[in-house]
Formats: sequence, structure tokens, C-alpha cells
Amino acid sequence: MSGPLPRTLRSDARDNRARILEAARAVFGEDGLSAPVREVARHAGVGPATLYRHFPTKQDLIAETFAEQRRACRTVVRDALADSDPWRGFQNLITQICELHASSKGFADAFMAAFPEAMDFAADRERTLRAVAELARRAKETGRLRSGFVVDDLVLMLMAHRGVEEVARAARLAASRRFAAYVIDAFRAVRETEAPAPLPPAPVLRLTPSPGAPGAAPQPG
Amino acid sequence: MSGPLPRTLRSDARDNRARILEAARAVFGEDGLSAPVREVARHAGVGPATLYRHFPTKQDLIAETFAEQRRACRTVVRDALADSDPWRGFQNLITQICELHASSKGFADAFMAAFPEAMDFAADRERTLRAVAELARRAKETGRLRSGFVVDDLVLMLMAHRGVEEVARAARLAASRRFAAYVIDAFRAVRETEAPAPLPPAPVLRLTPSPGAPGAAPQPG
Repeated sequence: MSGPLPRTLRSDARDNRARILEAARAVFGEDGLSAPVREVARHAGVGPATLYRHFPTKQDLIAETFAEQRRACRTVVRDALADSDPWRGFQNLITQICELHASSKGFADAFMAAFPEAMDFAADRERTLRAVAELARRAKETGRLRSGFVVDDLVLMLMAHRGVEEVARAARLAASRRFAAYVIDAFRAVRETEAPAPLPPAPVLRLTPSPGAPGAAPQPG
Repeated sequence: MSGPLPRTLRSDARDNRARILEAARAVFGEDGLSAPVREVARHAGVGPATLYRHFPTKQDLIAETFAEQRRACRTVVRDALADSDPWRGFQNLITQICELHASSKGFADAFMAAFPEAMDFAADRERTLRAVAELARRAKETGRLRSGFVVDDLVLMLMAHRGVEEVARAARLAASRRFAAYVIDAFRAVRETEAPAPLPPAPVLRLTPSPGAPGAAPQPG
């Protein structure tokens, strides 16, 4: 095609793009990133050629589909770090990240690096984990977070949340909230007559997809 | 074939059967029950016909493959119920069920009813959940288990454990143990100056595979 598109076509193109993104949010959200791109096209009611014109690679489509969740995630991290009560900030961060993951299996896949196509989420992930480390340091100083907590423990719980994401849709958000509340209580420092037994050693859980490496996130298929 | 097999063949058949079961434990253990039966045959170094002669259906193969884990699970439940300290029995039950699930993804699949082929595990599951209910009742009486705990919370945590099972093999058992310890602390009644906030409502999580029903276990594929 040469020259600018006629006004009506440009509007069609915009509609198609919006429809594709809506379909991608639905399909990847429910089935995760392993869902084929052609399924997104089918769901959007456009041909594969139209989809590829807007999003040449699956990576492009994924990045754009979850732009809103990525912004939300950055806000969660910023608000948690800005909270004058670090333990409250830490709790909110856990609750809200779990909620974001429960709302979209595809976003959770991308965040947890389960798919190489989502490698450009690495920066979000790193920023989040650095924030967790900083919040944890401050929350331990207040005596509210248990001293044995390590950042990998939150990674462990987010991997565990993948199992919660398999709960059928009608109960998923409630399951995720209950899970998050239990996780927060598990991380809480307790001052009671009978202290809990020391935790077993924390495994190192790497979020970079490298098949076979200890603690690597699961690969597709 | 008519009449008894010659002694040498009978011995070969016994070897094949043992090899098939060993292969099934390895393949289903690592890949879960979605692994195809022909992959088990290949791993055992026998033809599909030989496998089907010993195990006419996938259900037969699954039942026999996990006979040992099922016995172990029944022992865990019996010992937990027999413990004179119900909270200690309850903790041991959680630790040991998580360990059984971490040791074999296939057994966890079967236990969690993720596959219709494993329907004869329903009795084990029911017995375990009845034991959990009974132990929880007694452990609450001692004041050691938080009063808000419901049996579905353990189901939720076992679903969450499915995510932990995706940790690479080298770190999986350590991850599972750390997870189980956190779960136990989350369920513990605490007497502290600042009590934790009440839990969000518990979702109902059914372990019977019925696609689309609220809280149904995930279906294959």
C-alpha cells in the first residue's frame, strides 16, 4: 500500500486493533500465553494477516495486551515503596500482585517468565523484586515482618499462586484473596508464647527461563 | 495364548511389568498424568502391545503406578489421626502430603482429581479430607489451629502446591518443604498483641473434575 489510508479504512484499522487487543486479553487471560495467536485472531473475528499487520510478532502482541497490567504493577510497586508504614506497604504489594495475577493468567505467565516471548517483562520483574527487597528490609526493622523472610519466599508464593490460578473462574478471585491473606499471615512476625519452628532453608528460585536450571520457571508444553 | 506361560517367559513378563511400572513412575512423576502411555512404553523399552497386555487401560496403569504413594498417604492419615497431639498430627499431615505431591506430579494430579482417568483415587481423597476435618476440629479445641480455618483452605493450599511442583527438580523438594512450613504458620492460631486481620471468605473448592463448575479442578489440556 502507498500513501495514507483513506479515513474510513484508518478507522477500520483502529477498530481491528482494538478488537484484537480485547480478544488477546480474553484468550491469553484465560488460557495463558501458550494460547496460539490464531486463536486470538479467531476470537477477534479477523484474519491472521490482519493480526500480523498490527502485531508482527507474538512478543509485540503480548507487550501491548498487558500494557495496562504493567502500568498497574508499576503503580503498586511505587505506592508500596512510598507507604510510610513499610509493613502495610509490603502487605498491599502482595495482595495487589496476587490480584493482578489472578485477573489474567497471561499476565502471570509473562511476569513469572514462563514464556520466552515475554522477555521484555524482565525489567518489570526486576523492579518489583528490588522493591520487595527494599520493603522487606524496612518491614523487618519495624519488627512486623519475620526475620527469616527472603525475597525468594515471595517468588515461591507467586509460583504457588500459579496453582490458585487454575481454580475455575467463578471462584478464582476469592481463592486468590484468601491465599494472599494466608501468605501475609505466614510472613508476619509473631510474638507469642510458643514461637513457630524455624523455617526450612529457602531454595533459590530463578525467574529467568532456562530449562533444566535449578528453580527455573516452567517452560511451555 | 492358551495354558500357563513357560517359566522363562513368565519371568520375562514379570521383568517387563516391573520395567513398565518403573518407567510410569518416572514419566508420570515428572510430566504428570497428561504424559501419553506410549511415552511410558518407550521409556520402558517395550512395545505398546506389551504395555497394553499388562495394563489394558491408562487407569489400570495409573492405579498400579501409584500404589505405593496411596499406601503412604493412608499411613500419613492414620498416623495423624492417632497422634495424641492433634495440632502436631495436623502439621505432620500437611508436611507429608506436600512431600508426597512434590515427589510425583502424577500422584498429585491423581490426588487432586485433575484427570478423569484417576477417578478411583476419589476414595483416598475423601478419606484424607474427612481426616483433615476431624483433625481440624480437635486442633481448634486445643487452641493451636486458628478458628477461621476450613477444610477448603487445605484444598486451596494443595492447589497452590501445584505451582510449587513446577519448580525445577533440583530445588523442588526444598521449595515444597519451605511452602509447607509457611502454610502451617499461616494456619497457626496466634496470641499476639496485634491480631491478624480476619481472613477473606473461603471459596468452595470442589475436587471433582467437572469442567466449568465453580472451583472445579483444572481439566487436562
